[in-house]
Amino acid sequence: MRSLPFTAVTINDRFWAPRQQTNSEVTIPHELAQCQTTGRIDNFAKAAGLMSGEFEGIFFNDSDVHKWVEAASYTLQTHPNPEWESDLDAVIAKIAASQQPDGYLNTYFTLVAPTKRWQNLGIMHELYCAGHLFEAAVAHYQATGKSKLLDVACRFADLIDSIFGPDKQDGLPGHEGIELALVKLAGVTGEARYSALAEYFVTRRGHSPSVFEKELENPDIPGGLDAYRHHFTRDGNFEGHYAQAHLPIQKQTECVGHAVRAMYLYSAAADIAYQTGDTAIINALEALWRNVTEKRLYVTGGVGPSGHNEGFTNDYELPNVSAYAETCASIGLIFWAQRMFLLKGASRFVDVLETALYNGALSGISLDGTGFFYQNPLASHGGRHRDEWFGCACCPPNIARLLASIGQYAYAESDEGVWVNLYIGGTADATVAGDVSVKVTQETDYPWSGDVKITVDPETPVTFGLNLRIPARCDAFEVRVNGAVHTSETNANGYLSIQRQWHVKDTVHLTLAMPIERVYAHPLVKENLGRYALRRGPLVYCFEDVDNPDGVFQTLSLVEGAPLETAFDSEILGGVTLIRGTGTVLDAADWGHNLYLHSKPDLKRTDVTAIPYYAWCNRGAGQMAVWVL
Amino acid sequence: MRSLPFTAVTINDRFWAPRQQTNSEVTIPHELAQCQTTGRIDNFAKAAGLMSGEFEGIFFNDSDVHKWVEAASYTLQTHPNPEWESDLDAVIAKIAASQQPDGYLNTYFTLVAPTKRWQNLGIMHELYCAGHLFEAAVAHYQATGKSKLLDVACRFADLIDSIFGPDKQDGLPGHEGIELALVKLAGVTGEARYSALAEYFVTRRGHSPSVFEKELENPDIPGGLDAYRHHFTRDGNFEGHYAQAHLPIQKQTECVGHAVRAMYLYSAAADIAYQTGDTAIINALEALWRNVTEKRLYVTGGVGPSGHNEGFTNDYELPNVSAYAETCASIGLIFWAQRMFLLKGASRFVDVLETALYNGALSGISLDGTGFFYQNPLASHGGRHRDEWFGCACCPPNIARLLASIGQYAYAESDEGVWVNLYIGGTADATVAGDVSVKVTQETDYPWSGDVKITVDPETPVTFGLNLRIPARCDAFEVRVNGAVHTSETNANGYLSIQRQWHVKDTVHLTLAMPIERVYAHPLVKENLGRYALRRGPLVYCFEDVDNPDGVFQTLSLVEGAPLETAFDSEILGGVTLIRGTGTVLDAADWGHNLYLHSKPDLKRTDVTAIPYYAWCNRGAGQMAVWVL
Repeated sequence: MRSLPFTAVTINDRFWAPRQQTNSEVTIPHELAQCQTTGRIDNFAKAAGLMSGEFEGIFFNDSDVHKWVEAASYTLQTHPNPEWESDLDAVIAKIAASQQPDGYLNTYFTLVAPTKRWQNLGIMHELYCAGHLFEAAVAHYQATGKSKLLDVACRFADLIDSIFGPDKQDGLPGHEGIELALVKLAGVTGEARYSALAEYFVTRRGHSPSVFEKELENPDIPGGLDAYRHHFTRDGNFEGHYAQAHLPIQKQTECVGHAVRAMYLYSAAADIAYQTGDTAIINALEALWRNVTEKRLYVTGGVGPSGHNEGFTNDYELPNVSAYAETCASIGLIFWAQRMFLLKGASRFVDVLETALYNGALSGISLDGTGFFYQNPLASHGGRHRDEWFGCACCPPNIARLLASIGQYAYAESDEGVWVNLYIGGTADATVAGDVSVKVTQETDYPWSGDVKITVDPETPVTFGLNLRIPARCDAFEVRVNGAVHTSETNANGYLSIQRQWHVKDTVHLTLAMPIERVYAHPLVKENLGRYALRRGPLVYCFEDVDNPDGVFQTLSLVEGAPLETAFDSEILGGVTLIRGTGTVLDAADWGHNLYLHSKPDLKRTDVTAIPYYAWCNRGAGQMAVWVL
Repeated sequence: MRSLPFTAVTINDRFWAPRQQTNSEVTIPHELAQCQTTGRIDNFAKAAGLMSGEFEGIFFNDSDVHKWVEAASYTLQTHPNPEWESDLDAVIAKIAASQQPDGYLNTYFTLVAPTKRWQNLGIMHELYCAGHLFEAAVAHYQATGKSKLLDVACRFADLIDSIFGPDKQDGLPGHEGIELALVKLAGVTGEARYSALAEYFVTRRGHSPSVFEKELENPDIPGGLDAYRHHFTRDGNFEGHYAQAHLPIQKQTECVGHAVRAMYLYSAAADIAYQTGDTAIINALEALWRNVTEKRLYVTGGVGPSGHNEGFTNDYELPNVSAYAETCASIGLIFWAQRMFLLKGASRFVDVLETALYNGALSGISLDGTGFFYQNPLASHGGRHRDEWFGCACCPPNIARLLASIGQYAYAESDEGVWVNLYIGGTADATVAGDVSVKVTQETDYPWSGDVKITVDPETPVTFGLNLRIPARCDAFEVRVNGAVHTSETNANGYLSIQRQWHVKDTVHLTLAMPIERVYAHPLVKENLGRYALRRGPLVYCFEDVDNPDGVFQTLSLVEGAPLETAFDSEILGGVTLIRGTGTVLDAADWGHNLYLHSKPDLKRTDVTAIPYYAWCNRGAGQMAVWVL
């Protein structure tokens, strides 16, 4: 089974198409301007000798430009534009020019510490930045067919491969990312050395003595030992958890440390297992998946609750106001979930992918495309606002590359079938039964509606299974094939599989029930005790004080049993389905001067309105809550 | 109006008498042993030249010994014991011997930094330790009539008075305490200079430039500038809030900074206002009182939620698990409340005193008298345990001196009347109408019962008002005088005043309703939303997992409307009235492997049992909650 690449999918719907258009027309230019004004682009020109001056910004700023190149490349393919293409080519030219004669490419080390390459793999992110260069190169090649950046990437990958490996220098990235990038690079080049190096990085990790332990002994380490010790020691002893270097991947059962790093590692491990069938890795990934989805996942698809380590803490520790839930971490979860689906074929992975996509990741960007969240809390007492950029700007280009490439998460294919994983209006070009082309067209107003019309157009009549993902949350659905009711038995993988010979213009009507659901958290999630969240389809809802101005916002409660209704409002937040109902709120005035009362205070009836979580903080930095009483 | 001193009150009941006995027989000897083994007593011997060796422990450890002397003195008066008296005399002899020829007394500075006296008033606690010496001396003199320690105190007070004051050196204690001690010293000696010095310390505080700002400019300050800056600067600029030195007392309206310091300052300010009638100070104290009782007070009478500054934060910020609520701070609140009562004559101050006494202060000591809490959280996830002592051991001798002297909070007198503020079985010797002695005898099982029999025995028939405090929380009560129902109209000060000519063996029967109350917190107290606490009489209740083992403890909920019942159980926790009822709990097993469910989970019915908060953590370090769903 393989994903359909973003190049084989078009999107033409009311939900994602406008977001992709904004991404193309607003976000990508906005982020290029940010990269320009913050010196990120100039760093490449300086390293290339094209301009004078010192390195500017944080030592891993190259990666933001690489991610922007990746995002812009996807966008050029979906939204061609000659002017932007020349902007992109200009940036790529500077990146390429900064490559050193031996293939090395990293503007910080080239400009600041040229003699100290590869001496601080734990902190200084040379391999991480290389990974993002590789991903950009692959995307640019796939989107445009141009090989300029791909050649740059391969020369650098060859250099890295010549240095690190089983019989060479011991090395590992402190921040994972290069592993999955090398797999992608191997995919487009056919170069097995790249996937072998990825496998080395994935499987060498967590063995002792670690390269990180050795680097801790270097008093002259670039970047200094203090930061290194902060992340890699506890009580003076080496501790690898922060970078998932505490155990070999095959032994890992708990998601630990920096969440983005964890997601990127698990994604690469799934890539490796997909190629090798290594059951020890597959079993470890299942255990890690169970750990995160059963004990460490926000209802929004956010992961990594703590700002302290930008990552994981303990089972069921999911605070709302202080939730870190980095945008990049939800994006990384999408990467991992997609690979777990390819590995195991089960819909439960795509269910989580969908949750993260529509909520914890999408919340990371404003509706106008120029405001970003690094953290995605599930409640705010007010004062949280979106920024147009960050000093550490990993998230803005990450969400841009995700939005530009979501088509690749919608479908999968194999010789035996086509999988429809995301319900998004548009088309997909699949190939089944060896070489039979099939166009699949979706017409749907999902996620506002659960009705999906799928038209199957094979170039010639062909027998295969059309596999429709039925979300586990969905208690009721109906399927009609060419108007006739079809069985609604899902298979063990969670799909409704329609096995038949398909002819041109065959239609499938899928109707997923989209009730408003009250969601209850496990009782060990302390902050959500006595509370619930609202969900409809893939969308988690939240309440903002701007819609719910009565009384003390924190006391907002939905009346038990009172009906909740949906209403699509095209006028607000770019058009959303609101959830409305009757609730109660407490009024501080009823307390007078009392801090405590011993008679039950009156609840004030009030109309309540919830909006999709992804759309919060687009109307000022007010109070917000996902979990209400 | 004046309090009846502890020497005029005996206690003979089922609640406090055993605690005083344990205090006398167990806690006082235990704490002496701790002071001995930790070098606290030896420090005095070393400073006196009676033994060799270096200063041991923290620089303000003298104050723990002084507080122990105060506690032991009270106890000797209530529980005479020749052996302990000689122990006390031996300690006092060492303290006295450590006094320097000029009257100075502080073992840290005498042993470690004799040339650096009074150079770090902000941090090094010389004046604070002096204050506790003065309080000890006053208590010892009152309890035993011996003047040895009082003479020592006066010589030191004279030295301090010769150094600091309006026309002398500018000085203030960083940690308040000496102010109220000087007022006490003036009270027993009649020396007006001492109360004048107290007034200087109270009213000089908060004026600019502050002595603390000047000390910040001394690079050679004993103790070092770092600690000083930590407490007294923000962003590099002087900030006096930590020690209530941000504004003159007359301008203060919000309780800020270190809670114990605040309580001691406000207590002294009330003492000064009592003497001078200064309306600006009285108005400020009223504002501060309203601030703490309306916005910053735990339902247990704890104050100061934050461990960061050991003190106050923001209005309505009253976290439960992380509540600092230092034992000493609740004790300080009792001191302040008592003085506010004397200043204003209103029962509302004593209501708060009673709450702090029976809950937030009393929780600071174990039932066996040898285990202490420094912090008094309102919830625990387990693992909190009592210690037999602390490195910074302010709380253990503080609770010991409180327990030994609670008689002084029970009654007040004036020419016109007697006030019964606390319902405690025992006797009080008051004087009314100039010189008529009246013995008041209480028989009661309070706080387990609301029935109080009061016998009034004047030496000769005399007309005065017997003023019974009716707690504001009490919605129903009945009073009978010699069997006849009396009006139950309380006066503006919250007292039921029985004005009549009293004869020997006149009896008053007061019956206070003692229902189980559900208490609701103000809606801006975020942690208590949707929760309530149980209270009965002055006692706040809590739940411990040892009594409530079913399901997930955190989900414990009382069934709305289900009856709650009381049951006295003499077998557990020294004999307590339990509250029992029917509740619900969630069972983690019902969640299976799910982190989120979208059908409402079944609640499991369970019997629930609550115990008085003061008695928690006497059966292991389990989970506890005051506020339940």
